[in-house]
Amino acid sequence: MLFFIGLGLHGAKGLSLLGLDLAKKADIVYLDTYTSPVAKDEVDSLKGLIGDKIIAVGREFIEDGREIIHQAGQKDVALVASGDPMVATTHMELRLRAERSDIKTIVVHGPSILCALTGETGLHAYNFGRPVTLMRTGAPRSTVYEVIHENLARGIHTALLLEYDQASGFSLDPREALHSLLEMEADNRQGLIDDDTLLIVASRIGSSSQSISGGNLAGLIHKDYGEPPHLLIIPGRLHFTEIDALRTLLDIDEGKIRDNSLRAQRLAVAMVRRYLSSTRSALSKAVERGKAEKKHLDDLFENVECYLSDSERFLNAGKYELAILSVGYAEGLLDSLRLTKELKVEW
Amino acid sequence: MLFFIGLGLHGAKGLSLLGLDLAKKADIVYLDTYTSPVAKDEVDSLKGLIGDKIIAVGREFIEDGREIIHQAGQKDVALVASGDPMVATTHMELRLRAERSDIKTIVVHGPSILCALTGETGLHAYNFGRPVTLMRTGAPRSTVYEVIHENLARGIHTALLLEYDQASGFSLDPREALHSLLEMEADNRQGLIDDDTLLIVASRIGSSSQSISGGNLAGLIHKDYGEPPHLLIIPGRLHFTEIDALRTLLDIDEGKIRDNSLRAQRLAVAMVRRYLSSTRSALSKAVERGKAEKKHLDDLFENVECYLSDSERFLNAGKYELAILSVGYAEGLLDSLRLTKELKVEW
Repeated sequence: MLFFIGLGLHGAKGLSLLGLDLAKKADIVYLDTYTSPVAKDEVDSLKGLIGDKIIAVGREFIEDGREIIHQAGQKDVALVASGDPMVATTHMELRLRAERSDIKTIVVHGPSILCALTGETGLHAYNFGRPVTLMRTGAPRSTVYEVIHENLARGIHTALLLEYDQASGFSLDPREALHSLLEMEADNRQGLIDDDTLLIVASRIGSSSQSISGGNLAGLIHKDYGEPPHLLIIPGRLHFTEIDALRTLLDIDEGKIRDNSLRAQRLAVAMVRRYLSSTRSALSKAVERGKAEKKHLDDLFENVECYLSDSERFLNAGKYELAILSVGYAEGLLDSLRLTKELKVEW
Repeated sequence: MLFFIGLGLHGAKGLSLLGLDLAKKADIVYLDTYTSPVAKDEVDSLKGLIGDKIIAVGREFIEDGREIIHQAGQKDVALVASGDPMVATTHMELRLRAERSDIKTIVVHGPSILCALTGETGLHAYNFGRPVTLMRTGAPRSTVYEVIHENLARGIHTALLLEYDQASGFSLDPREALHSLLEMEADNRQGLIDDDTLLIVASRIGSSSQSISGGNLAGLIHKDYGEPPHLLIIPGRLHFTEIDALRTLLDIDEGKIRDNSLRAQRLAVAMVRRYLSSTRSALSKAVERGKAEKKHLDDLFENVECYLSDSERFLNAGKYELAILSVGYAEGLLDSLRLTKELKVEW
């Protein structure tokens, strides 16, 4: 049998009673040290709890998996990992391979950092959109920026995990990550990230040396965050209870708390507002011109006005596609007069 | 002091060693039985582990919170809850109140159902968008449908939690939830949900009676799912490893596995395609009519054609807002001829 046991976030003592039972029962216990770092004293504590049969293993051993599968076919094997043991896709792969080899698998869940963020920051679980990982240079930053943008455009929060590579000992420092965010902004220019962007840096969550800092990017970019693992949160629109939590738990100065999603106005909102304004202005000129040239264009002008009102109504109701369509149509109706030279006017 | 202790998903044995230590140390232990049901034998097991000082409490007691805060100001009080103790906003409220009353709080995280879904279904943690809860009748279903739509439009999965109300003993049955999805579809008509929609029903995750079913809506809507808690997952676009997991772990027939996100084309795509088609057709008629009436409208017709081409280009480039604006404008340019009776034509 193959047991996947989550160690959770609180070191050796984060192990559940069920996890401890199964680990003790197992003939071999592999300890995954690559998805998240496990401090030496925690390994020692685990040995104290489970026994000396713990073997620390890295990515290659687990990705290869043949040894584990082979052993699990003959004995009870446990794979212990920080957080929840199944969040890493390599572990799921291993589980599927075992199941397909008719080896029974048991999963003992542990708290994952993704779900702990709610409790540690006060940001509601229901307000987190898709999470994303920031890797060191060379990896697709546009995807990271896109996910942040998508989440912010919906007013929801983004958990940005920072790469940790056990084999090389590399971990992406939050300061470097913050610089990367600014670089991404310079490339993509959607106006999402600047010195005032509200951010949270969460380090070593669950451990006794846990530390969470919140504030604006300018203030956070120079701090020392210590040992990994780290992650960032880019909050979106904040419920008043979330603001309360940020102030109470993270001691974030009220002046620094802001709605990051305002910047990430859906492209639609900015677009519609701009065209509503310019088309309304064009309409006034057209109406005047129409009178001056004694044209009978009231029907058309009325239609333009109607579609502009519709557009505004759709915008306020959050029906962005219809808002854009209506304002585009209104503009087209009006511009036609100019193009056919029906009215001698420019706007 | 006030300890928030996550029981996790595996009953009494889901308690972590740290959680057990603190619960034993506490003078009073309140057990939250309202955010998720706790079976009687589990309560008994907990008493066996922690001692008789466990008091089961409901929503009102925790929302009121005064007794807890009062006690925590004088002794060590523990609040034990299923899953992660901080996912419920009422618990966070309590924590903030304690902190503001200078009562130290400690959180011992437990695995939340939201994070366990990855391991139980093989759907990647990074592919889940915002979760949402389906409440019984009277609650805003349009919001639920919107969240599902938003996630599907981005190809990502939705965890749909089903209401559980301990005070009344009510829990939303998955069959009723599936019917609700069909009703929501009838109201909103975005083509997201039908008999072939791939869905997963997950019940009592982590318990010994855990059960997960996957398949199409038509097949799932008649099954008996037993006791709560339940949740649904509406998967989006599936990575091949996720398909592999659904087949291996959940035994879902290959013929039933589909990409639900194909239906959830962004509203924009369906809209633009429709208007491109109708406006092109109208343009043909207008060009003919223009020749017949010997009108000199080539400039205008050329503009209409340009904006239609632009729209299509924007659509293919994923620039949806510009695509809608362009096709709306093209349609307006053309319709103006009809409204000003420049052309005697209908389309």
